[in-house]
This record gives sequence, structure tokens and C-alpha cells, in this order.
Amino acid sequence: MSFLDQISEPTLLLNEAIARANIGRMAEKAKRHKVRLRPHFKTHQSRQAGEWFREEGITAITVSSVKMAQYFARHGWQDITVAFPLNRRQLPQITELAQQITLHLTVTSADDVAFLREHLAAPVHLWVKADTGYGRTGIKTEDTVVLEAVLAELKQTPQHTFSGFLAHAGHSYKARSHESIAAIHQETLTKMRGLKERYSSTWPKLQLSIGDTPSCSTMEDFSGIDEIRPGNFVFYDLTQNLISSCRLEDIAVALACPVVALHPDRHEVILYGGAVHFSKDALQQPDGAVIFGLVVPLTESGWGEPLPETALVSLSQEHGIVRTTPELFSQFEIGGLMGVLPVHSCLTADLMKGYVTLEGKQLEHLSGVTQRHS
Amino acid sequence: MSFLDQISEPTLLLNEAIARANIGRMAEKAKRHKVRLRPHFKTHQSRQAGEWFREEGITAITVSSVKMAQYFARHGWQDITVAFPLNRRQLPQITELAQQITLHLTVTSADDVAFLREHLAAPVHLWVKADTGYGRTGIKTEDTVVLEAVLAELKQTPQHTFSGFLAHAGHSYKARSHESIAAIHQETLTKMRGLKERYSSTWPKLQLSIGDTPSCSTMEDFSGIDEIRPGNFVFYDLTQNLISSCRLEDIAVALACPVVALHPDRHEVILYGGAVHFSKDALQQPDGAVIFGLVVPLTESGWGEPLPETALVSLSQEHGIVRTTPELFSQFEIGGLMGVLPVHSCLTADLMKGYVTLEGKQLEHLSGVTQRHS
Repeated sequence: MSFLDQISEPTLLLNEAIARANIGRMAEKAKRHKVRLRPHFKTHQSRQAGEWFREEGITAITVSSVKMAQYFARHGWQDITVAFPLNRRQLPQITELAQQITLHLTVTSADDVAFLREHLAAPVHLWVKADTGYGRTGIKTEDTVVLEAVLAELKQTPQHTFSGFLAHAGHSYKARSHESIAAIHQETLTKMRGLKERYSSTWPKLQLSIGDTPSCSTMEDFSGIDEIRPGNFVFYDLTQNLISSCRLEDIAVALACPVVALHPDRHEVILYGGAVHFSKDALQQPDGAVIFGLVVPLTESGWGEPLPETALVSLSQEHGIVRTTPELFSQFEIGGLMGVLPVHSCLTADLMKGYVTLEGKQLEHLSGVTQRHS
Repeated sequence: MSFLDQISEPTLLLNEAIARANIGRMAEKAKRHKVRLRPHFKTHQSRQAGEWFREEGITAITVSSVKMAQYFARHGWQDITVAFPLNRRQLPQITELAQQITLHLTVTSADDVAFLREHLAAPVHLWVKADTGYGRTGIKTEDTVVLEAVLAELKQTPQHTFSGFLAHAGHSYKARSHESIAAIHQETLTKMRGLKERYSSTWPKLQLSIGDTPSCSTMEDFSGIDEIRPGNFVFYDLTQNLISSCRLEDIAVALACPVVALHPDRHEVILYGGAVHFSKDALQQPDGAVIFGLVVPLTESGWGEPLPETALVSLSQEHGIVRTTPELFSQFEIGGLMGVLPVHSCLTADLMKGYVTLEGKQLEHLSGVTQRHS
């Protein structure tokens, strides 16, 4: 009996071999460029997947919440960067973590530094968030007045270590070609290296950390950079494929969904699999249409290539609508299972709360382990 | 000390008084129109919120998954409709439930009926899903050939009770005025009553069940209808407000989010609160811009009116960006909390996995109780 026979509701399948290959490739690239790979664990949020990184020699990681830092600290990770603006309301949790592990925090203002000097006794490493053009948060690299105010506060905060500048060129997610990723990456490199040049006489140990999956996956110039923090690359997804960060065959997760109804008149297939499984993140196709996933046939050894002219075109809370061609419609049968490659694997994994590998192993995800209000 | 002082990470606040008023109003309306209110519990998915319905005399409920049916059956609900196309892969779970409670299932084809005749020994009630124009799933009411094939199978399936036709006019969610809801509702009524007229000589006990929140909230004609199944009305949200199903003051949930960074140059505020808390469901505003929530000040007794010209304009995994006016920008401070009214309360509640009432009570949500792979 195939492991597929055991699946009765939407289930996130994880091809461990693909994920391990993705990790191995990035680890090798980091070694080749002599940068530290501090992978972002927000995509998998799984202690078991974390071990695959450890086997590649990874000892330092990135997370995007204090809760995630607590989880991975419980599972033996001793060097963690919270790459999210300091949340002052979590000072007690931060203090506890700082007493247990080597904790790195992200500050976005001089006031953040002053707050930590006054309120956090346990020593931490501080990274100043630099905005190299994404425009979400951080200090613009050209805003020397604000930057120098932060550095002045850091000088007065000897109990914490100023590690350097941390950037996330998240605008690379809007890129749709190698050339546009390259342009964003070069701008980030230029701006970050500029910071090092400007401030390294005062702070000789100042480091630079960057970390979006598109740039880390496709670029080959990391000179001057000390650390990279990509996350999504462990699984990739359709967004990364559209950006040209990965091939379709590098996508390591697919959602297995039961087929519950067929509409032969419009070649539509209703899946048990909706917004609470996939997330509502959508991908605009070149023709302007929006899709929520591509459909792949499931086999005992994983999944095949996406079916042509077939996509998940609509999601409600628990339903998904797949539209296909008259020719392919007959591949679907009520009671059967179909695979769907997700648009955004981070959000899909968070919703699914766990994984099943092709070998039938169950892996946990933080969102299935703890309750937010426990 | 206010209960707000206890909040250190994104927390879904629930104003119990508003939710109870929403329930009371719908229960009163159902009584007035002599229809059975079988509320859809997919929005709250909470045993505690379920009790508020019981206090209004509700004994029969609707859910959208077998898992939800199992959860509410465990908490004493004895009459449950799974308003989702039959998922044959969950036959063992369905069988177990059918042995415990009065279970109603939704079928979308003659083949579904034959399957249940052959494979489900425990008796259930069957509803034939009718498509009155939404176009998601179900049999089009004018498709008499298919309908009669289903009815013929039902005649041969005496162990299960044919209850009637069930519709969900989900296209009312695209409505943006009372008039357009009315047009959709009238079409649904006409089509559903037509089914009753056509088939009640053969099936004199045949019932009609409809159930979208916009129609049930705003319409006053339910003649010929036996049952309504609205769900979202317990909390409402910004989508329902835009549809004109509710007033802003009827929205019973708001997400409390810590402020973690300020960008005075662009009047943007960074919240700890992102796609994994809100969902990526967005609302297109009349001016074409997309928003993910409206911002409300939090007080000890709940929240105030939305701040003008202020909205959650962007979400990444854990970050939210609020854009406001130069005048209102000073209301935000790092380390403070802001409230956000969600675009789609069902998805936000599913992601948040639980609630805190204004009295500080913690209420559970099914997604925080069980793991999908437990």
C-alpha cells in the first residue's frame, strides 16, 4: 500500500531529498564564497528539518520571532539572530533567551539601543537594520544622520556587542528575471560595502549580513559580505520559480489534496484544500490571471511535472478550484488525490502545521506544536 | 493594570458583547421568519463561542470539514451538517460520527449517493448541493437531468434520509450594495423554491437550506426557506462592512499588534503582525488600493473607530505596514499596541488559533487545539 492511501485530508508532502539538495547547494556556495550561511528558519520552522542543516555544518541560524527563537533554542540551537525589529513588549522572553544562548537582535533606531542598554542586562549582539531599497523597515544606508545617532548610542552600550549591518533586499521578490535580481543585488552590495567603508575605522569588526533567497540562489558576487541569511530556498515555491531563483524540480513541498467534486461542463475540479491550507498568496501569471498553485500528479515516489494549462484558480476557506483542459480532465477522479505546488511555501507550511515525507515520516512545524496563547 | 499590558505578541481580541449581540440578532430574525438557524461554525471554531449560540436555543450547526464536526461533536453538539462536498477518503471518520450524532452530509452527484449507499451503513441525512449562481460547486438548479439522476439514486437509498437542497450564494461576497445582495438573494430564492415545487410531490418533506452572511444579515424575505446557515456574522469583518452586511461597530474581533518601528519620513508604522496572523486576504478600496485591515485605537473597554486615512497597506510573513497621515502619526509609539480590524475574520481566527476576550478570558479555536497530523 502506498503512503498516499493513508492521506484523507490536505497534507503537506515534503521531498526530503530535494530539501537536502537545496540545503547542500547553498552551504557549498557559502563555503565557496567564504561567507557564513546563517539560514533563516522561518520557512520550515521544524526541529527535524533543522537537523538537516546541522549535518551540513550549520551552527548559527536566523528566525523572525522571539517564539521561533525559543523553539529552536529548546532544540539545541545556541546562536540565533532574530531578524525582526526589536519587540520591546517581549523583553522578559528576550532576557531569558539572552541568558541561555548567543542571541542577536535587530535594532532599527537609536532609541532601540538606548532601550536595550537600560533594560536588558544579559549581553546580546546587535545588528542595525539597513534599508538598501526595499522600503519596509530599517535605516536607509544614505541616511547618515540617523545611522550615526544609532552608532553613538552603541558606543555608550558596551554590555552589548555591535555586530554590524543587516539588510533584507525583499524587493528582489518583485524581480522576474536574472537581470533584475542582479541589479537589486548589486545595489545592495554597493550600499552595504559603503557602510563598511564608512564606519570600519571606528568599528573594525563590523560585519555585513544580507539574505534574500533570490539573490543568494542566483548571484555569485558576495565580496565584502560576511553572512547570508536566505530561508525560502530550503523548499522554494512557485514564486521563486517565477523569479527564476529555482527550477520547478527544486520545489521540495507539495500539498496533497483529495478530489471531492468534478464539473465536466467547465473542466473544473473541486479539491479539499483551501485558503486555510494554502494561504491566499497568489501569483499573477504573464497573461494577467491569478493562480494559487500548479497541479502535479502524485506517485509513490513523489510528484511529477505540473500539468499543462492546469492551475488552482480559486480558493475559499476549505475549497480549491482547479481549472484544466478537456483532455486532462479525465485524469481527475472523485476520491483521488492531486498534488499542488504552492505559491508561497512559508505561508503554506505555517498553515499546514507539519509535514509528511515521502518515506512517511511526520515532521513538526512550530505552528502545530505550541499555541499562541499557551 | 489593563489586560492590554499583558499582550506582548499579536493577539486576537474578541468583544464577547458584540458577538453575542450579532448572534442574538440573527436568532431573533430566524424566529421572526420561522426558519431554522443552523449557524455555520467555521468562523469561530470555538467550543466556548459555541455555547453562546446554545444559550440562544441553537441545537443544530453547520461545519465545513469532518474534523470540525468531530470537534463540535466532542463538545456536545448532536446535530451537525458538513456543508462541504463529500470527501470519500474520510469514510472511516464519517462512519464513526454517523454512529454518534445526527450527521448531515452534502452530496454533489448521483455517484456520491451510490457511494454512501454502498459504503456507509450508519444512517445519515443527505443534502443535495444546488448551485444557484455562485459557480463553485453543486448542481445547477436548471440542470434537471443531473438532478433527477441524483434523486433516482436517493430513491434507491432508503437507509439515508434525503433532507433537501442546500445552496450557498457565495457570489453575494462580490456585492457592494444592498441592491446587489437583494438581486442575488431573489435569484437564489426563486431557484430554490422552483426545486421545491418541482420535486415536493415525490419528496413531500423536502427542505431548502441557504446560508450566506450578506443575504441573511440584510434580507427580509425567507418565505419557502426552511433553514439558514450564515457563519461569518458572529464576528463580521471589513469585507462584510464593504458589502453592507454590517456596521463597523458590529465587528467583534480586532487583532492587537505591537508597534515595533516608526518611519516618520513616510508616515509608516511597522507592526508585529503579518500574513501568518491576518492572512493575505485583501480588500480593494474604491480608489483601487488594496488594504489588509483598518487601524483602531485600543482601550481598556475594547477599541474605538478606525483612524481616518490610515490602513494596513502591506503584509509580509511577520511584519505589517500601516500608512497614516502626518497628523495621526504621533498616536503611534514604539512598544505600544494598535488594533486592526481584519479583512476576513474566518481566516484571521484560523491563523490566530485562539482569542482573548476583553475580560481576559482565553477562548480556543480548533486550529490551536489539534494538530492536522496528530
